[in-house]
Amino acid sequence: MQGEPEVAVLRLGHRPGRDERMTTHVGLTARALGADRAILAGDASKSQGTVEDITDRFGGPFDVELTDSPKAVIRDWPGQVVHLTMYGERVQDVEDEIRAAHRGADDDTEEDASEGDPILAVVGSQKVSFDVYEEADYNVGVTNQPHSEVAGLAVFLDRLFEGRELEREWSDADQTVVPKATGKKVVPADEE
Amino acid sequence: MQGEPEVAVLRLGHRPGRDERMTTHVGLTARALGADRAILAGDASKSQGTVEDITDRFGGPFDVELTDSPKAVIRDWPGQVVHLTMYGERVQDVEDEIRAAHRGADDDTEEDASEGDPILAVVGSQKVSFDVYEEADYNVGVTNQPHSEVAGLAVFLDRLFEGRELEREWSDADQTVVPKATGKKVVPADEE
Repeated sequence: MQGEPEVAVLRLGHRPGRDERMTTHVGLTARALGADRAILAGDASKSQGTVEDITDRFGGPFDVELTDSPKAVIRDWPGQVVHLTMYGERVQDVEDEIRAAHRGADDDTEEDASEGDPILAVVGSQKVSFDVYEEADYNVGVTNQPHSEVAGLAVFLDRLFEGRELEREWSDADQTVVPKATGKKVVPADEE
Repeated sequence: MQGEPEVAVLRLGHRPGRDERMTTHVGLTARALGADRAILAGDASKSQGTVEDITDRFGGPFDVELTDSPKAVIRDWPGQVVHLTMYGERVQDVEDEIRAAHRGADDDTEEDASEGDPILAVVGSQKVSFDVYEEADYNVGVTNQPHSEVAGLAVFLDRLFEGRELEREWSDADQTVVPKATGKKVVPADEE
């Protein structure tokens, strides 16, 4: 989110045709829940287009990129790499440490406070190769149960940001949804 | 979860073929994140089978049912119906109230504490008919942005249970994943 070290989401193992919807949901979840950027490995141009379209309509800033070299993205990442996997350490055990690294150390004086690290959250589709486990700074399980990379990413981001992502503001939107107890209210963005 | 009023997840609008994977992810997310039961509307027998298979291998209790009458499930639900939708009230504004209803009122004495209400969390796929909005006790947005019903459900359950779901224990599992900083460790369930 703006004013914080970057959080990007890398989606591995996209198979065109088969994975379009899941990859789109990963991208949209990253955008909605406070990440700054999604990086989609492989030929995920259709998902990229859908997420860009939503960003055009509902606002940003949010970027979606494609990469043919996801391993280089991981290797060259300047901060913490957090691979979400059901085999990893329990999120409730490591989240404080990851959050502290992201926010930067709180020293006694404001001036001494070091800058936080950008975070790359990595989510796979089916099999993830073993070098991702080795390259990652953290392998983290949002439960050690099989469920959904979209669900794992959502809980991880909500915990990383401690709910601040729910208050984020959007720029350059065409339209805005106004929360409502019943029914739907969508207004042009400038009339909110 | 065991020892608490039931939480069930109703998945609306399943289209066989097209929605199999998303519906399966809804079911697996419900199971992994503390719900007791998933109810899938329409011909979702393939997703039902996948979730049952995971429950056989990784433990329960967790039930998956099909229904041809999702509206009757909503209408006849004995507790709170929470419809997750991007048009709803902000989750951060209503979660305390929903949680309090689920847990039951905390009276001064233990004996006076009333029983909590079971919760039915409703998630749609594409279009959800207007009567669902009207029948629901709460229409709740996990952000008012378009993203993923799986992500919305995950964040809602994690907030409803305040993380207790991450500590839940599993019965009758064949295998258990042991959390690990790097690599994968899966052991027969009785050797944990």
